This record gives sequence, structure tokens and C-alpha cells, in this order.
Amino acid sequence: MSLNYTLNNIPERTIKPRDKGITMVMDKGLSLRQAEDFLEVAGIHTDIIKLGWATSFVTPNLEEKLKLYKEANIPVYFGGTLFEAFIVRDQFDDYRRTLDKFGMEYAEVSDGSIDINHEEKCQFISKLSEQVTVISEVGSKDATKIFAPYKWIQLMQAEINAGSWKVIAEAREGGNVGIYRDSGEVRQGLVDEILTQIPEEKIIWEAPQKAQQVWFIELIGTNVNLGNIAPAEVIPLETIRLGLRGDTFNHFLNQK
Amino acid sequence: MSLNYTLNNIPERTIKPRDKGITMVMDKGLSLRQAEDFLEVAGIHTDIIKLGWATSFVTPNLEEKLKLYKEANIPVYFGGTLFEAFIVRDQFDDYRRTLDKFGMEYAEVSDGSIDINHEEKCQFISKLSEQVTVISEVGSKDATKIFAPYKWIQLMQAEINAGSWKVIAEAREGGNVGIYRDSGEVRQGLVDEILTQIPEEKIIWEAPQKAQQVWFIELIGTNVNLGNIAPAEVIPLETIRLGLRGDTFNHFLNQK
Amino acid sequence: MSLNYTLNNIPERTIKPRDKGITMVMDKGLSLRQAEDFLEVAGIHTDIIKLGWATSFVTPNLEEKLKLYKEANIPVYFGGTLFEAFIVRDQFDDYRRTLDKFGMEYAEVSDGSIDINHEEKCQFISKLSEQVTVISEVGSKDATKIFAPYKWIQLMQAEINAGSWKVIAEAREGGNVGIYRDSGEVRQGLVDEILTQIPEEKIIWEAPQKAQQVWFIELIGTNVNLGNIAPAEVIPLETIRLGLRGDTFNHFLNQK
Repeated sequence: MSLNYTLNNIPERTIKPRDKGITMVMDKGLSLRQAEDFLEVAGIHTDIIKLGWATSFVTPNLEEKLKLYKEANIPVYFGGTLFEAFIVRDQFDDYRRTLDKFGMEYAEVSDGSIDINHEEKCQFISKLSEQVTVISEVGSKDATKIFAPYKWIQLMQAEINAGSWKVIAEAREGGNVGIYRDSGEVRQGLVDEILTQIPEEKIIWEAPQKAQQVWFIELIGTNVNLGNIAPAEVIPLETIRLGLRGDTFNHFLNQK
Repeated sequence: MSLNYTLNNIPERTIKPRDKGITMVMDKGLSLRQAEDFLEVAGIHTDIIKLGWATSFVTPNLEEKLKLYKEANIPVYFGGTLFEAFIVRDQFDDYRRTLDKFGMEYAEVSDGSIDINHEEKCQFISKLSEQVTVISEVGSKDATKIFAPYKWIQLMQAEINAGSWKVIAEAREGGNVGIYRDSGEVRQGLVDEILTQIPEEKIIWEAPQKAQQVWFIELIGTNVNLGNIAPAEVIPLETIRLGLRGDTFNHFLNQK
Repeated sequence: MSLNYTLNNIPERTIKPRDKGITMVMDKGLSLRQAEDFLEVAGIHTDIIKLGWATSFVTPNLEEKLKLYKEANIPVYFGGTLFEAFIVRDQFDDYRRTLDKFGMEYAEVSDGSIDINHEEKCQFISKLSEQVTVISEVGSKDATKIFAPYKWIQLMQAEINAGSWKVIAEAREGGNVGIYRDSGEVRQGLVDEILTQIPEEKIIWEAPQKAQQVWFIELIGTNVNLGNIAPAEVIPLETIRLGLRGDTFNHFLNQK
């Protein structure tokens, strides 16, 4: 499993392209060289890249970077806030044209900052899935908007039915809303209940903080889908998945 | 406004060279290639670069980096702590020679770590403004030294009169002193009162933390002057200025 | 002392190779270019590099990076968690072969995640010191395992006797266990007592957070051995050692 030396009894890791064990990385404005550096070290461990929220609006190297990621064979998509920025301006058709212009094969549909009714959100998911692979996000960026577990399940189910390839559980770059409390702590009861109804491989948990990654890996396993990982944290995350960092070292040993 | 696609009703952003809407970036020891990477992505959004405190004392690539920033047409200056390190050693003339030796066109005058009376500080501002464009900083790095709003105003006014191009409101790299409480929270009453007397375009607010950037952008607007921004945070900041990140997404929409 | 300009009365800094004043840097997955960038800026200030915990298991560029650091004449070692990962799997001989295969001249022996009796740990130190220079680490990664000062001293002494070149006081990448409280605050009484018995040059204090670096520099001096420093924090640390950042600016002046 390692490229460099052999350790016995390492948890089995799925390989790319995979449906479970996905690492979604957030690029919030890397230069081309920084993107190459990230790919050199972490490309083999990265399944999909999000260009964070609407950073693509102000980055001058967009086309070249998309080309770079395409050559590395890693799908890329614009953060959901960009979708929302188009929607709130009544520019859905412009959004679709923008996806085409840049040859995007994935897109995110979210409503973290806008208020639309859920039926309408699902219609956007349906329409966009004719054009691209859709990832949709559940949960508000507003820390005061908390909904009950049955509601999370209902929303996720409806979005999957509407055509979402995966649903993302919102946490933001900071990891302090949605499935997390203000403090960054996981809302455990919520996660447990979601998992009774939604297959784990359909969900990507945003988990930018190490303690959150550890928590999901210990709950769901080595091959949990995790998102909003910073480029420099992909290697550390990979060691946590394999029980090769202090945090999960004993967790995996005890399972044997 | 964007380089990549069009969104309607984006807040109007000033363009470089500008007097309002300045982003001051802190370089605390970038390599040449890292500086190039930063310029590739964020150069068009960066108005001025500070080589943090006295990091220039121990960086081996100083001359080449200054050359790089000069070619990119972005002014650079040594952090105020370097000025203070010369002053406290009674080496003001050496400081002036050092500015000349490296062809510096800007300099910072501060008293965050040293005790000098304010008249003397203003004399340094006067003398240095014959040689370079002076930025001066108000506020102590010592969290226990808090002064009243009228005092902040008095000091800022006197320094502007003495020749400062802009005054900086101290916050440090960490964003937890001066205009901020220990916790990083803004001292709102203080800021409001300062703005009744000092024109906003004369002030650069040090705002290294995202919540602080959001706070000032919502109070003063898209084109507030902000400082101590980390190189990798310039793109994120630019989206916050434009209402294209969750934090300010609704703030700007509601203004329309 | 500076490469760029002269300031009087700067604290005297030891030079490489040195026994006191060591900066140990943690590389947790740099690309080759990032490693070169780090060396360009901070190579002259870096004494030894740790490839954090078992990150070497999943990094694709291991051999080339070791070559790069060797050419820069900076010793490198695998983090102690890798040693423990081999030991807990009863693969000590494989570990020794791995060290040989990659031409390692240093190795860390630790028991932060595994339970072995201390005699056995000292035997590993003895055996490995025939092959490489050994650094051993005292203190658990488990925040609930706290031992008394006399115990720290006993363990450190025994490990030095067994052949450790230096002993490391555990703190992790986060700086919140071992010699630190949960909050990251130093356990001052513990450190004071250790220093009555163990020569300061034999200890490397893990101090990833700035406040911790400041604390040790003010207690022990400019040339204290510090570890787990992030690559981008070597230049800032160097200024703190020299009293050229706000944090220690007055500490060193007052000593004159």
C-alpha cells in the first residue's frame, strides 16, 4: 500500500476512482505552481477538487488551472456559493453557459446563503444533471439556522432523487456550522440518525478540522468521504485514515 | 469586473493605484518562488506589501525579493518593529541609510514596543517623509495598554499632520490587540468614534482574521483599507469585499 | 549577524552545526519545490528536519526529498510514530532495514501512542544508536496521561544513558499535550524542575505555537532548542530568538 516500505495490517484503502473514501480538496486560490506542488504530493490521494465558493470570480489563472487539473485527471467544480450568486441575480442561464465555457463536468447546487424553496432547489439539481454531475449541499452557512435530523434526511433524500451524485453536509471552510456546533464539535446524534437512512457513500462530510476528520474516520471508517480538506492537509488526512497518526493509531489496532 | 464571467450588481471596486480599498499584505518570509506565486494570483489585488516586523534582518533573499516586487510595481516597506529596533538602539541614521541602501520608497513609523513621547514620534515622521512615503501606526502591541477614543483620534491627527500618508490601526499578525479585544473581537465603539473625526481613506485597519475583515467591510464598505492580510488570504478577502463569500453575501444584496 | 544591515546589541546566536539553539522543523508533506523554497529562506536557520509522524508512508517523493535535504546538509529523521507503527506490529527488523534502505542517519524512538515498559524502550535506543544517531521522545500523546516531574527526569536521564543524543519533550503538532496543558499553556513548574537535573542542551522542547516559543526563549534564552516548527515559521522564530519581534523585543533589551 505504501510506496516506500511495508507495514503489516494497515486498514484497507479503496483506490481511485472510488465511490467511498473520497477526499475532496478545497483550492481557494492556488497559483499554477502551487497547484502542481499539491498534485505532486497529494494528487494520488485526491478524488475531487472544489474551487472554493466564488474565488473563481477573482482568480486570474482559472483556465490554466482547470487545464492542469484535467491533465491530472481529477474532477473540479465551482463552490456552491457561485451557483447561488448566479441564482440570486436571476442568472441561471448565464451559470449554465459559464459551466460550458470552462468545460466543467461537475457542479454544486447549494442554498447556504440564499432562500429558495426546496422544490425549486431540486429542479435546479434536475436541470443541471442533464449537463453535468451534480453535487448538492445540505445545511445553512447561517449558524442560527439549525434543523432537526428528520429534516436533514428528507432534504438529502429528495436531492439524491432529483439527481445528485453525492450530497455534502455543510461545514464551511471553518468547520463551525451545519453538522458542527459553533465550537467545531460534531453534532453526533444528528450524524448517527442521518446514517440510519442515507447510505454513507452518498454523503461527503465537510471536515476541515483534524478533530472532525478523526471523529468521522472513527465512526464510519478509513473510507469515509470527507471534504473541504486544505491542500497541505491531504497527506496528514491520509495517515489518519490508515491509523498512522497518533489520533487514530490505537483505534485501528484495537479493531484487529 | 471579473476576468472570467459576468455577475450583475457586483459592488463597485476601486482599481489600482487607489486611495481607498487598499489591501496591504504581510510577507513574513516568502521565498522568491513563493513571492512569484503570490503575485501571479493576487498581485492585481495587492496595493502594498509589508515585510513583517524585522523579518528582513534574517531573510537571505532580501534584495532579490525587493527587485521582484518592484518589477510588479507594488510598493514595499519594512515593518514598524524594524524602525523601533533601530530607534531603541539610537541608530536612526543607520535606519535612514538602510532605507537608501535598499532603495525603499515607503517606511513605517511605529511605537508598538518602544516608549517615546508622541512629539518625538511625529518628528521621526516629519524627517522620514522627506526621504520616503511614511505610514505610521497607532496602538500598542501590549494588550494592557488601552487608550480612550479621543486619544486615538488625537494621535492619528497629529501623525497625519506630521506627514503620514496613512495611519495604521494596530492589531499585530494575530489580530488581538489595539483595536481588538484579547478575543479578536473589534472594539466597535472605538472604531465608530475614530471615523467621526478621521477620513476613512487615511486609515488602514489591520484585520488578519476573517471575522475582522467582514466586520470592517460591512461597516465601511467594499473599499475599506485593510492590512496584515496573509498572501494566501488575498483572494478570499477580495470575494468578501464583493459579497461573493457567504459572510457578506446577503449584506450587499440587501443594500440594493 | 544579519545578512542585510547592522543592528547593535543583538543577542548572540550560535551557528550551525550547534549543540544549543537548535531549530527542528516539521515537514508534514512538502513537495520538492516547496522543500527547496523552505531551504532557500530558512535553510541557514534549520538544524534538523523531522518528516512528521508516518507521513513518509504516503508521500510519493520520499527519496528525492531525502536527497534534497542531504545536499543541503541538514539531517532528517522519520517521526517517532513511524517507529511505533513498526514496533506495535513486531517489525523492528523491518524498521532497521527501512532506515538503511533510505540511508537515514538519525532516528526517533518514542512511545507516545504505544505502551512498552521503559526498559524495553531504552533497549531500542541502545540498539538503534549502533546504527544511527537517536533522538528519543518523552511524554504521551494522550492528554490524560500526565506524570510527575521526578518521573520526567528519571525517564530523560535513562534515555540519555541508553544512548539518546537529545531527548524531546512531547507536544504534538498542535502543542497541547505533554509539557503543555490542554489550552497550550506551558506546565511551568514541570519545566523548571526538569532543568534542575537535565542539561538544557540535551533537551529539544516541542513548541509549535508562538506563545510557547516566546515562553521558552524568555526562560532559557536565545539559544534554546525548539522543535516541531512549521517551515514558514522558522524566519519568525529566528526574529523572536533575537528580540526582533514585539513578543521578546523588550525582554532582551532589559537584560542589557
